[in-house]
Amino acid sequence: MSIASIYEPIQQTIAQVEERLEEFSRNGLPWMAEPLEYVLGGGGKRIRAALVLLAGKFYRYNTEQLIPMATAIELFHNATLVHDDAVDKYSVRRGKPTVSSLWGGSIAVLLGDYLFSSSADLVSSIGNLRVVRLFSQTLMKISSGQLRETFGAYNWRQNRQDYYEQIASKTASLFSAAAEAGAILSEAPEEAVEALKTYGHNLGMAFQIVDDILDFIGDEDEMGKPVGSDLLQGTLTLPAILLMENHSQSNPVKELFEKKGGQTEVQRVIEMVRNSPIVPECYRIAAGFSTQDSHALDGLPENACRRSLLDLADYVIARRR
Amino acid sequence: MSIASIYEPIQQTIAQVEERLEEFSRNGLPWMAEPLEYVLGGGGKRIRAALVLLAGKFYRYNTEQLIPMATAIELFHNATLVHDDAVDKYSVRRGKPTVSSLWGGSIAVLLGDYLFSSSADLVSSIGNLRVVRLFSQTLMKISSGQLRETFGAYNWRQNRQDYYEQIASKTASLFSAAAEAGAILSEAPEEAVEALKTYGHNLGMAFQIVDDILDFIGDEDEMGKPVGSDLLQGTLTLPAILLMENHSQSNPVKELFEKKGGQTEVQRVIEMVRNSPIVPECYRIAAGFSTQDSHALDGLPENACRRSLLDLADYVIARRR
Repeated sequence: MSIASIYEPIQQTIAQVEERLEEFSRNGLPWMAEPLEYVLGGGGKRIRAALVLLAGKFYRYNTEQLIPMATAIELFHNATLVHDDAVDKYSVRRGKPTVSSLWGGSIAVLLGDYLFSSSADLVSSIGNLRVVRLFSQTLMKISSGQLRETFGAYNWRQNRQDYYEQIASKTASLFSAAAEAGAILSEAPEEAVEALKTYGHNLGMAFQIVDDILDFIGDEDEMGKPVGSDLLQGTLTLPAILLMENHSQSNPVKELFEKKGGQTEVQRVIEMVRNSPIVPECYRIAAGFSTQDSHALDGLPENACRRSLLDLADYVIARRR
Repeated sequence: MSIASIYEPIQQTIAQVEERLEEFSRNGLPWMAEPLEYVLGGGGKRIRAALVLLAGKFYRYNTEQLIPMATAIELFHNATLVHDDAVDKYSVRRGKPTVSSLWGGSIAVLLGDYLFSSSADLVSSIGNLRVVRLFSQTLMKISSGQLRETFGAYNWRQNRQDYYEQIASKTASLFSAAAEAGAILSEAPEEAVEALKTYGHNLGMAFQIVDDILDFIGDEDEMGKPVGSDLLQGTLTLPAILLMENHSQSNPVKELFEKKGGQTEVQRVIEMVRNSPIVPECYRIAAGFSTQDSHALDGLPENACRRSLLDLADYVIARRR
């Protein structure tokens, strides 16, 4: 199932979002054009933008409001990536050097701030207070989730529940808000808003779990970033938590985090995970969210968008990058 | 004229803003309390918050909306300070080590993001779309102003006009928005909104010019930061521009910026400014904005708040830190 075929019902509209993003880079102040084009033209899959549009096509397909909303969510998402890269000092993302490694950390911080504020301005230009509030609350969830992750770095005393809470705030909240905003702007009935919000949450949970699995088993060329980045940053994800559950006596992650181990020690933990049933178990958990995801849509009209959302839930599990 | 006597008409309300800021630090997630209290309890003068309240007291003094607005402006202002310090790698602010020097650059970036998003959420909780839009457009102006300053670092080919545009976006826009938001939320007539917005703009211009003068002549102990920080960062401010105008043949700033000079070279330029009529000339320019400032209020009701705003315009010129 290709992403293009999933996006088929919103093909024209998502192309307009892409145009808006290009315009945004060009229409800013001249000295920003280059880094903005670099960030926004990066060939991401635009899943969050697509989610706004697909969720917004069950009732009144109000593209005049959905396009700025989808563009804003994409601007905001890219703002978080630019700041993340600056914070984690990653040098590569999607196979390309990061903004902070090309233009320096200061430009990365300020460019991220500019993307944040532009996304807030775009959302407020839509003129729907409920959506404005949803958006600002989502920003808070995400930034507190990211702070929590950073303060919790190298803390191996975290369990599955902590992990789920963590990824719910840092990742699933934006997926959920994208779907909810699409539903609200299409004037969906409240049960449908709730259903799409739940769908978005579960999709985001599955998405992040797969991301975290790929950090253990992915192909560096396909992913465009090195394997083991999370462990190297002291970030505890589901595969490492399952490994700790299986080795409660001699905890390999505890050992790694306590001595803030480098590539060699990280590689050892990665091998332990790969040589165990942990990866299929993590996929089983991700698929559980994905199944809940599909069920969330049960009450919605059966149309092409619903099929696309179901396919998207599968796609997120099967993706390699 | 003490700041306490200027704040007299809003004494009780500004104390409530202070309480809200304290609550905000305590009510966040536990691991954030310490850095948040550190940032928000910093004993700033809260001029921007005071501006919201004073501008909001000419018509309907609606403290239920003005208090969250003033708190949000203060949260946002502190977010920009935390990011600025991380970007400029300052180690001291208001006489205290900066967040980035105490907790590291990553925490500074994420804590700033959290303060940004919290301020946006607080503004949107007021439920006034006009104020939401004003706020988000102000965020954009400020962040593009800061980007412009960073991209323009060590560029000595900037004149007074460039400088005025620069400080209008990075500083005066928030003063202006604070006064405008106060006026809007108090249901002021449009001419009064316009007058207070203009007042805020001019106050912000005068404020920043004085800030930039103090970076040349201030007392390090009083200011709580080293003299010459701007030149050391390659930031061109009014005194340096006037110096260049007076030395078009052998331009001392060009020389400094081209070799990215350190303390010794910066000290030489500072001495040249101090031993010239540039400082009084800069004060004359700041006072010009301050006078325009006072005239902006001509059409407003004569009351204690108007007197406070007039005094604030003088205070901003006379301040030593």
